[in-house]
Amino acid sequence: MKIKALQNFLQAKKTDFALLYNVGMDVNPNFYYFTQYSGVGCLVIPKNNDPFLIVPEMEFERAKKGTIKNVKKLEKKRFFDSVYENIKGKKEVIGIDTSAFTLAAYKNFRKTFKKCKTLDISQKCRELRIEKTKKESKYLKKSCDYASKILKSCLNNFKDFKKESDVASFLRNETFKQGLELSFPPIIASGKNGSMPHYEPKNVRLNQGLCVLDFGVKYKGYCSDVTRTVGINKISKQEKEKYHKLLQIQESSINKIENGSVCGNIYQSVVDSLGKDAMYFTHGLGHGIGAEIHELPNLTLNSKDKIKNNVFFTIEPGIYYPRRFGIRIEDSIVFDKKPVILTKVTKELIVL
Amino acid sequence: MKIKALQNFLQAKKTDFALLYNVGMDVNPNFYYFTQYSGVGCLVIPKNNDPFLIVPEMEFERAKKGTIKNVKKLEKKRFFDSVYENIKGKKEVIGIDTSAFTLAAYKNFRKTFKKCKTLDISQKCRELRIEKTKKESKYLKKSCDYASKILKSCLNNFKDFKKESDVASFLRNETFKQGLELSFPPIIASGKNGSMPHYEPKNVRLNQGLCVLDFGVKYKGYCSDVTRTVGINKISKQEKEKYHKLLQIQESSINKIENGSVCGNIYQSVVDSLGKDAMYFTHGLGHGIGAEIHELPNLTLNSKDKIKNNVFFTIEPGIYYPRRFGIRIEDSIVFDKKPVILTKVTKELIVL
Repeated sequence: MKIKALQNFLQAKKTDFALLYNVGMDVNPNFYYFTQYSGVGCLVIPKNNDPFLIVPEMEFERAKKGTIKNVKKLEKKRFFDSVYENIKGKKEVIGIDTSAFTLAAYKNFRKTFKKCKTLDISQKCRELRIEKTKKESKYLKKSCDYASKILKSCLNNFKDFKKESDVASFLRNETFKQGLELSFPPIIASGKNGSMPHYEPKNVRLNQGLCVLDFGVKYKGYCSDVTRTVGINKISKQEKEKYHKLLQIQESSINKIENGSVCGNIYQSVVDSLGKDAMYFTHGLGHGIGAEIHELPNLTLNSKDKIKNNVFFTIEPGIYYPRRFGIRIEDSIVFDKKPVILTKVTKELIVL
Repeated sequence: MKIKALQNFLQAKKTDFALLYNVGMDVNPNFYYFTQYSGVGCLVIPKNNDPFLIVPEMEFERAKKGTIKNVKKLEKKRFFDSVYENIKGKKEVIGIDTSAFTLAAYKNFRKTFKKCKTLDISQKCRELRIEKTKKESKYLKKSCDYASKILKSCLNNFKDFKKESDVASFLRNETFKQGLELSFPPIIASGKNGSMPHYEPKNVRLNQGLCVLDFGVKYKGYCSDVTRTVGINKISKQEKEKYHKLLQIQESSINKIENGSVCGNIYQSVVDSLGKDAMYFTHGLGHGIGAEIHELPNLTLNSKDKIKNNVFFTIEPGIYYPRRFGIRIEDSIVFDKKPVILTKVTKELIVL
């Protein structure tokens, strides 16, 4: 995917090849984006030749199922020695992903590549990922469909849940039943817990009042993200008013988005609309979605990122009153001549 | 946990403080070990004073629930600026975890800390984690009990499963029902899929023959790990023979472990026992378990790590015949004067 675009960049920057690696359990998203393989390995993208992947022997069969067809077995003791031996051309300037390259790995890298220069390609990789290909768009839309369906069915079954963890279990189970993964552990934050945007659901009774449900799935590695805030048993007049204020802001900020809209401006307009409540808006307004749950564009203060066709992102304003309650309303959106909401779950304030 | 031990190390190394950070979804295990908080933040451990944590405002309430009671809100735009302002004493030598510090973060770090020297504390942090405290031992034993119970119940229900993904769903659901997390996505690899040690279960029918089930849970953040290989429908004479050979090797290699045993020697003795099959033993023999699913000690070729009291680790020899079948038998073990197996699931060859 877009390997050619990266190669054009390497050529323009007089960089001989790009080197990305992946270790352990936590997948480096730039590595995954190019390889569609999530195991341990080193990816080499020469500026003119076909890319190849070097993996430990035990990962060889699995790696070949990814998009990089030239897979080699690690034959040296160290990855970077194997990379060195397999590079045919010059090794003078090497593109590396500094956002995933640790200092420890860099020290090892320097033992082998003593004299080369390096170019940071992390930002370029992230930028390549902003505008989605047809295949990625298909995966993301499907991912949003699944997330919506599962969240709807969760709301329909809400009467069965007694604890925050019951709601989370339901969302997880439905996700895995469909053969999907989670984008992130579901957030179920009831009552005052809702004031912590990244609260982890507990084995505790659902509190009366507002409850924030933040959920998303991965379909073929592509992430959806949706949040709804619902009432449990009974909500106060203030909670109701704040909910409707926030909903109106969320909808109007989506409707105003045009081709070329600057993300920092979208953020600022939400801050302006919130008025005094802006001080309780302690979370970003949104983020790109794709192979990673948080990727470019950034919908934060001062962000220069722009919305264009085939960009997938979230709009999720929230108000978090410490130790009282929280509200967040979030949709996943694709810009396709206009903003199109992909997470089709009601935003009417429902009290369950 | 063991903050005092790290402070002693800092004093001995004339290092003013240690700085660890955590970003995004993937938790830095050394950071988690000291904080028991998995969100975004910077941890500072001065050599003589109390440690403190700096977190974004929206994480403040959640962070205070961890073990570091002195939590500050991020007030500058950049983390390292906030750290700089909050350090009372000298800032001449700073301990950093190079295994989790990216080149990109280091560049930012250097914008603030222009003149300091750095000391790599990653190995020291990992070493501190080898011998478990009483609390950690309790969590790990409980984690192994849960994993065993869930795996047993999976085997008892095996007749209900048609696909590899059905088995994986069962293990996941039972895990979440108990309010636990997974140590890693379960591996269910039937027939020839078993020859890939890190195979991901698919939405495909369970193949006849041997099936590798590798599973573990996290209890309060602490990881268990257990693998069993079972027969489905019918297995060949060769599969049966190889299974019993491997089982005998697994058991005798555990029984030989003594206080002070060198991990590389334990590995070598397994290679020797495997004879000609050693060429199909393409995976490590085992690893420590704790806040991370793979931590010290390493049970690999040439490892100098030693087994001691209160060390938790796995023994998991495997034979992987490419495109034919695989066998792996794994237990989680604690050394407590002698090796004690914690994953109590039958190792008799059962055909389901």
